[in-house]
Amino acid sequence: MKDVGRKALEAEKAALKLANVSEEVRNEALQRVAVEIEKNCDKILEANEEDVDEAEKLLQEGEYSQAFVDRLKLDEGKIGKIAEMIRSVSGQEDPLGKTLDVTELDENLELYKVSVPIGVLGSIFESRPDVLPQVSSLSLKSGNSVILKGGSEAERSNSVLFEIIKETTEEVGIPEGWIQLIEARREVEELLEMDDKVDLLIPRGSKSFIRFIQENSRIPVLGHAEGVCHIYIDKEADLEKAVHVSYDGKVQYPAVCNAVETLLVHSEKAPEFLPRIAEKYEEAGVEMRGCEKTRDILEKWKVGKATEEDWKTEYLDLIISIKIVDKLEEAIDHINNYGSKHTDSIVSENKNRLLTFLESVDSSSVIANASTRFSDGYRYGLGAEVGISTEKIHARGPVGLEGLTTYKYYLIGNGHTVDTYSGTKAEPFTHKKIKKDWNKKKSL
Amino acid sequence: MKDVGRKALEAEKAALKLANVSEEVRNEALQRVAVEIEKNCDKILEANEEDVDEAEKLLQEGEYSQAFVDRLKLDEGKIGKIAEMIRSVSGQEDPLGKTLDVTELDENLELYKVSVPIGVLGSIFESRPDVLPQVSSLSLKSGNSVILKGGSEAERSNSVLFEIIKETTEEVGIPEGWIQLIEARREVEELLEMDDKVDLLIPRGSKSFIRFIQENSRIPVLGHAEGVCHIYIDKEADLEKAVHVSYDGKVQYPAVCNAVETLLVHSEKAPEFLPRIAEKYEEAGVEMRGCEKTRDILEKWKVGKATEEDWKTEYLDLIISIKIVDKLEEAIDHINNYGSKHTDSIVSENKNRLLTFLESVDSSSVIANASTRFSDGYRYGLGAEVGISTEKIHARGPVGLEGLTTYKYYLIGNGHTVDTYSGTKAEPFTHKKIKKDWNKKKSL
Repeated sequence: MKDVGRKALEAEKAALKLANVSEEVRNEALQRVAVEIEKNCDKILEANEEDVDEAEKLLQEGEYSQAFVDRLKLDEGKIGKIAEMIRSVSGQEDPLGKTLDVTELDENLELYKVSVPIGVLGSIFESRPDVLPQVSSLSLKSGNSVILKGGSEAERSNSVLFEIIKETTEEVGIPEGWIQLIEARREVEELLEMDDKVDLLIPRGSKSFIRFIQENSRIPVLGHAEGVCHIYIDKEADLEKAVHVSYDGKVQYPAVCNAVETLLVHSEKAPEFLPRIAEKYEEAGVEMRGCEKTRDILEKWKVGKATEEDWKTEYLDLIISIKIVDKLEEAIDHINNYGSKHTDSIVSENKNRLLTFLESVDSSSVIANASTRFSDGYRYGLGAEVGISTEKIHARGPVGLEGLTTYKYYLIGNGHTVDTYSGTKAEPFTHKKIKKDWNKKKSL
Repeated sequence: MKDVGRKALEAEKAALKLANVSEEVRNEALQRVAVEIEKNCDKILEANEEDVDEAEKLLQEGEYSQAFVDRLKLDEGKIGKIAEMIRSVSGQEDPLGKTLDVTELDENLELYKVSVPIGVLGSIFESRPDVLPQVSSLSLKSGNSVILKGGSEAERSNSVLFEIIKETTEEVGIPEGWIQLIEARREVEELLEMDDKVDLLIPRGSKSFIRFIQENSRIPVLGHAEGVCHIYIDKEADLEKAVHVSYDGKVQYPAVCNAVETLLVHSEKAPEFLPRIAEKYEEAGVEMRGCEKTRDILEKWKVGKATEEDWKTEYLDLIISIKIVDKLEEAIDHINNYGSKHTDSIVSENKNRLLTFLESVDSSSVIANASTRFSDGYRYGLGAEVGISTEKIHARGPVGLEGLTTYKYYLIGNGHTVDTYSGTKAEPFTHKKIKKDWNKKKSL
């Protein structure tokens, strides 16, 4: 059997056992990993230095950018943060064994729907070595085996981190084989083919990288494509709120997927609103690109001409496109047409107009009178974030640990047969929702 | 634009509107469709007769089987049942607008997670013309547009049913274009390519047919591959329950995916249990295939030799394979190895052994002391069944209307910006779970 096949098989076998490892043992393992990572700081930094040296050679040859090398680089502070992150994952509520629903089908015939791990996750990521401990700890907390493939540029750092996590967790009693590392690029292709063993892929990296994964595997992919987010300033917007929200959405942190890329402004509000936000944007160094009407109103400011391409673009930078619309519906249509179903906001004091916007915009997060920047696992109270999904199936929007679980039905009977409920003398089902807890039922 | 592309675009546009059509209008439309189908009974039967005539010619040429032609054939009774089914879908609880979770992030900043339709469904099915009204009504009830592709052998029947549903629903106010029919085979290939417009595929048909769809589209597929279901008779099984459950699982209706295919029997129970069930199976005409030890115990009965192939086979017929195991763990391993993650039962009076089985078998339904035949949307109380999924992502096991929904986050603020919660002077989030209902919030 090929190497990847063997690793996937080991991961699959371990997953069956890991599904029943208690919360205590999973948490204990995570706590121990955090300690070991801190203890082995020097060893990790040594391996990382070799990766960085190599990368710097390629930087000089013009193959890598400085930002790329910076992302690769670890230091004591970053390693402390990794340990802190692992402890925080350990401290989260257990996503497993939750009783999602209980139905009495008939006397002494009870159906429990309970959350369980998915099985085997495949995680493919680029450069940043802190992704490996993050994905590993989320997988372990949620009871899943994980097959990791990092970028070749971080091979030495990843290898040391992997060994620490593997050894430490297996010592504590996590089933051997639950974590696997693959290194060669050709092995990725093999991994993408393993839809019989790998249940979910979680790629991290650039848009084109994630798209590549989606196009080359039958395995379901949890990952967002991009965030072309909008803020719509309604004719009944409160001016102060409109300025605050538009400023925060663009300036607070422009390099992320939930930053706003396009402002849509109602024509009745534009003459009052646009000069106010333009002044603030100019101060912050935001480049503005507007439609004709926007440029007319902002003639005193430097506003470039927005093209069709601008409406589709995720700048991830201090650039914003601005369009004036005559109707709420025009804003909604623009968003559903050009947006990426990620996050979009409306600013308005009119409740009906808010509701129309919220219910008509087909995005994972639709926001009234607040910044698009809120759509994030941590801010939503989901704990550590697996990612933000722009898919509609399985998990949508910010995804926490729950996105790494599925469910299982337990039916508990007393010799019941379907025959009793069939044919002309069929007895009826009671189909009564009952409040019971699987974990309590277990210990009775 | 090609024909399928245009239809998918129409469906996508209609879906945005359909998401906000009230429950009353959706139900009214379904009720009216039921009436119109009854009214147009003659017209439907006429078209169906032409399909059947055509199929009978091909039957004589040996291309179709008699069973195939029988499945194709409608009569007044079957049409009455179709109307009844549509009324029952209409009567189900609305799967849309359910408040799944509410979190207060901070004062006046509330996050609602609410169930919404997925968008555009693609349904590809073979022969039986009652699938078209069933899938259409489930789609409409759950607020989804649907693109239908039936088998060419039912083209005339499907076309008449489609026209009735389309006209009736659009008259009542369901957005034009929500239902689309494609007919040519080459159009299926185009549909499978449309992962930017179609959100979920629901194929109905043979195993190989569903596998073909899964292998040829990037669109997520809701559909089960097969059901290789097991019943394990433990050494601490109650004999009467063991016999009842094993008989019901095989004999009550063998042609379905949740019927049992393999009995696993603990060696300590086998001498007592096997002759009892063999007698009943023989009476019912069940062909038995056993391992060596089984054949030794059942030497007085006609028991064939089970091969490796038998353990993997979904007979869908009055055939059963029987294997003797020495340990509970051996049964669990056999199921996780040869099963299809569908439905498996244990019969035992020992609670710890029941629990070990329930929690270690990686199937969508794991059952204690009851027949595998219970795992079904209707029996589980989910209402009309979309299918039984052996996938782990999105929906697992029997899938009701809920499987045709996703969710959306609504965040309601009052000018909130992320800046307030960032940096050294960051204010904390409250992240308080609150009991509120989106529909009530809306009407305030």
